[in-house]
Amino acid sequence: MQFTSEQRFDDGVLQREFTLGEIPGTLWTSGIAPAPLVLMAHNNGLPKADPRLVARARYTAARGYAVATIDAAGCGDRPRSAAEERARADLRRALQAGEPVDEIFESLVGPMVEKAVPEWQMTLDALLELPEIAGPVGYSGGWTALGIRLAVVEPRVAAAGFFAGGFVPRAQREEARQVTIPLLLLLQWDDEGNPRRRALDLFDAFGSKEKTLHANLGGHTGTPWFELEDGCRFLDRHLK
Amino acid sequence: MQFTSEQRFDDGVLQREFTLGEIPGTLWTSGIAPAPLVLMAHNNGLPKADPRLVARARYTAARGYAVATIDAAGCGDRPRSAAEERARADLRRALQAGEPVDEIFESLVGPMVEKAVPEWQMTLDALLELPEIAGPVGYSGGWTALGIRLAVVEPRVAAAGFFAGGFVPRAQREEARQVTIPLLLLLQWDDEGNPRRRALDLFDAFGSKEKTLHANLGGHTGTPWFELEDGCRFLDRHLK
Repeated sequence: MQFTSEQRFDDGVLQREFTLGEIPGTLWTSGIAPAPLVLMAHNNGLPKADPRLVARARYTAARGYAVATIDAAGCGDRPRSAAEERARADLRRALQAGEPVDEIFESLVGPMVEKAVPEWQMTLDALLELPEIAGPVGYSGGWTALGIRLAVVEPRVAAAGFFAGGFVPRAQREEARQVTIPLLLLLQWDDEGNPRRRALDLFDAFGSKEKTLHANLGGHTGTPWFELEDGCRFLDRHLK
Repeated sequence: MQFTSEQRFDDGVLQREFTLGEIPGTLWTSGIAPAPLVLMAHNNGLPKADPRLVARARYTAARGYAVATIDAAGCGDRPRSAAEERARADLRRALQAGEPVDEIFESLVGPMVEKAVPEWQMTLDALLELPEIAGPVGYSGGWTALGIRLAVVEPRVAAAGFFAGGFVPRAQREEARQVTIPLLLLLQWDDEGNPRRRALDLFDAFGSKEKTLHANLGGHTGTPWFELEDGCRFLDRHLK
């Protein structure tokens, strides 16, 4: 793991870019060491520099966490396979034409999750070597499908906050039953592209004994600011 | 309003019993004056001395609120009408026999809400005269039907926390659309006696622009302790 640049913000948060082989990543810390680690992934290939992700990461770091994200294979500026390019072109066409997109999302997101998980696990290994980071590890992310898969295969992940506003492939909807860690699921009640029923079914499916659903009125990007605080308090209960 | 007894607890909360005409009530304060007022009602006639209600009230008072409850007409030890006694006997029989109880609840709870609302409003008038109490006013209660009716008819109520685990008569399910204050609805995902679908429909029906649903795994009485903190933070956002 190579740190390539760093920036210190007024709120005391240190933002460092790193590379791990061909994986680019960002780590936010606030100087309280060693801090519990939060893995924060953006949905379905959105870049790690997306302002909403950065804002959530900085807020969470200021609350005493080490927060890390990466652009996994096919995400952000990483090269995409021909199949991925084709699926994304199909998706754009179908969305513009108002046609069903479930099967296209399935063919795009399913393989992306498969490729992303080992890269997140490699990153986790490297991060836990750093003196400023300690377990336990939480997952907090818009990319729910990745989080489900990580929660199932990665015993170091002790608690997870998910956002229901993203496509979850069949494989992850099925393995939701195998998720047993405490979790918080965020749902936007009127999310345009993500059927409410599917989100409620997903919440129902999780195997966790402690699971909480927070639903708020509004569309996909309308999550109220107080959910960021609530999300940190959820992590506090399980990681601190 | 006559105070009839008082008790000071280790956490600094002062608990005072009062009467207002024939209405018995309890007021909890923690000495931070003037404090915003929270009306806390227990479900469908349960007594104001119920330990779960008292625990919630004391916790909320320690967080800087004046918290009040009353035994409204037909609640707690207040005399019941012949119709109420009959409905309660019918209810016990039906529950023991495993028969449907919706219509019995309708005939019991509907009139109870009608009779309780003016008594809660009288109490509100009297409480707001006290120097240790100030607006704004919140409602936080197990008795959701009463809270809906109060939120509709009582402009002094500025925010409300409801518990979905109670019977809501048709009249209040319909007037939920007229509720426009910020609200937090608590739902126990596996509540034995209260269908989940009905709770989700109620959440959907509320007319409020800011509304949040918190659902947790477990049965009717299994609400996790952290929801008490979350409920106070919800009140903090709107009453402080």
